[in-house]
Amino acid sequence: MDPTAGDLTCRTAALAARYGRASIPPAGPWSDTIAHLLDHRSVRAYRADPLPTGTLETLVAAAQSAATSSNMQTWSVVAITDPSRKARLAAMSNNQTFIVGCPLFLVFLADLSRARRLGEAEGVDLIQLPYLETFLTAAVDAALAAQNVVVAAESLGLSTVYIGALRNDPAGVAAELELPSGAMGMFGLCVGYADNASQVKPRLAQAAILHRETYHVPDEAALRATYDAELAAFSQRNEMSSYTWTERVKARLGRSDGRERLREVLMQLGLALR
Amino acid sequence: MDPTAGDLTCRTAALAARYGRASIPPAGPWSDTIAHLLDHRSVRAYRADPLPTGTLETLVAAAQSAATSSNMQTWSVVAITDPSRKARLAAMSNNQTFIVGCPLFLVFLADLSRARRLGEAEGVDLIQLPYLETFLTAAVDAALAAQNVVVAAESLGLSTVYIGALRNDPAGVAAELELPSGAMGMFGLCVGYADNASQVKPRLAQAAILHRETYHVPDEAALRATYDAELAAFSQRNEMSSYTWTERVKARLGRSDGRERLREVLMQLGLALR
Repeated sequence: MDPTAGDLTCRTAALAARYGRASIPPAGPWSDTIAHLLDHRSVRAYRADPLPTGTLETLVAAAQSAATSSNMQTWSVVAITDPSRKARLAAMSNNQTFIVGCPLFLVFLADLSRARRLGEAEGVDLIQLPYLETFLTAAVDAALAAQNVVVAAESLGLSTVYIGALRNDPAGVAAELELPSGAMGMFGLCVGYADNASQVKPRLAQAAILHRETYHVPDEAALRATYDAELAAFSQRNEMSSYTWTERVKARLGRSDGRERLREVLMQLGLALR
Repeated sequence: MDPTAGDLTCRTAALAARYGRASIPPAGPWSDTIAHLLDHRSVRAYRADPLPTGTLETLVAAAQSAATSSNMQTWSVVAITDPSRKARLAAMSNNQTFIVGCPLFLVFLADLSRARRLGEAEGVDLIQLPYLETFLTAAVDAALAAQNVVVAAESLGLSTVYIGALRNDPAGVAAELELPSGAMGMFGLCVGYADNASQVKPRLAQAAILHRETYHVPDEAALRATYDAELAAFSQRNEMSSYTWTERVKARLGRSDGRERLREVLMQLGLALR
């Protein structure tokens, strides 16, 4: 069925919010779910309101419904509501204090400890456990599961934000959450009701991300100039400071933040990464 | 609003399909999107029917709407429709021939090459690029984006399956897709119309995955025995062979499949992982 003029207006607006002046025409198929996905925004201020009974279990059921490599399910999640524990985890995560404010803080684990225990119980040597490939599988499993939680939560009117800064101190997080050897906190996820009205953040043009048949480097200087202007305007509107994407990437990757130690920390956590 | 009896029946059925005899009560909130998420199944047989015009662009817009660490967008996707290229990639991926049959094969990249080019263009040394932490960020970014594609595709009546076996030969994939230094194919994703009726695969009980406040190892022997029986029945129904989860994990992690070489291959691909 062809979309109505009103539908097309909504699709055009959703794509324009995501891509700014580099938007694409609303030519493709559409669904309410896709509209929700495009409307995603990360929220860093939460109301204290608790979640409805059973919300956590529903979100975890959605998470477990995501694909998992060879059905190995090498991930786990720790659900945290205790304010003092959230405060300690926030302190380890760049002092992002809104973590304390969200009613539910989830920590997603790359978790090879379950398979390790299985091997021990069965008396078999699971020779692939100490390799980077297996850890990577666990990290991807955790990410797929977490993204289903985000989609499920947003479908319930809840908001979320990933906390990658949880990897500033993986050993501290492991101690706080009493993780067994072979498990690592990949990232946190705040879940709750938004306490502010944030806007959809524009992304790079599709031409920068999407390649056809083989990888072709597009005219990145031009794409980046357009996007820099877009993000400067967005940050000015939303964060009371104006920065371009180029400035942001240089700042993020151009200086040490201590996370370069990850490899040695992972070994301490029982993840060998051969 | 309280759910009707019919709603509750549907929720109970959806949870029972996902958890089998270890199911949870339908106590939590619910949405159509959550029902879709729980109904996910990986599909390994596709009809030749092409996708509607604009489907790829809509799916990529959904992918770019996922969160990305510090908005760095360190991922890309290569969209492949050429049958001969799909055949070569299938040959590199355990000869999973249904890859050739799906109308659209996506390869998601952990892509640090864009940031590397930015650093070169700007004349700055992005010192974090050669570290495991940065690669991990890119891998997670790619996974979050891909999962949005899965959710968006399923909302359009399409089916998908992840192809982790693409990591059997990352160098071969990089050559086939002409990837620049600093980019790696993390996994493939088939997108198309299902040519069979697969069932929802049961997962481990929530008690095995979900921890509260801190990690507690549950009675895994009992959980595993229940799940082994569940998965044996599922595999008997769906795959004409019966295997338990325990057998599957032992087979997958207990023997070499060559992917242990990932670390050295990544270095060849310009991903240093210090």
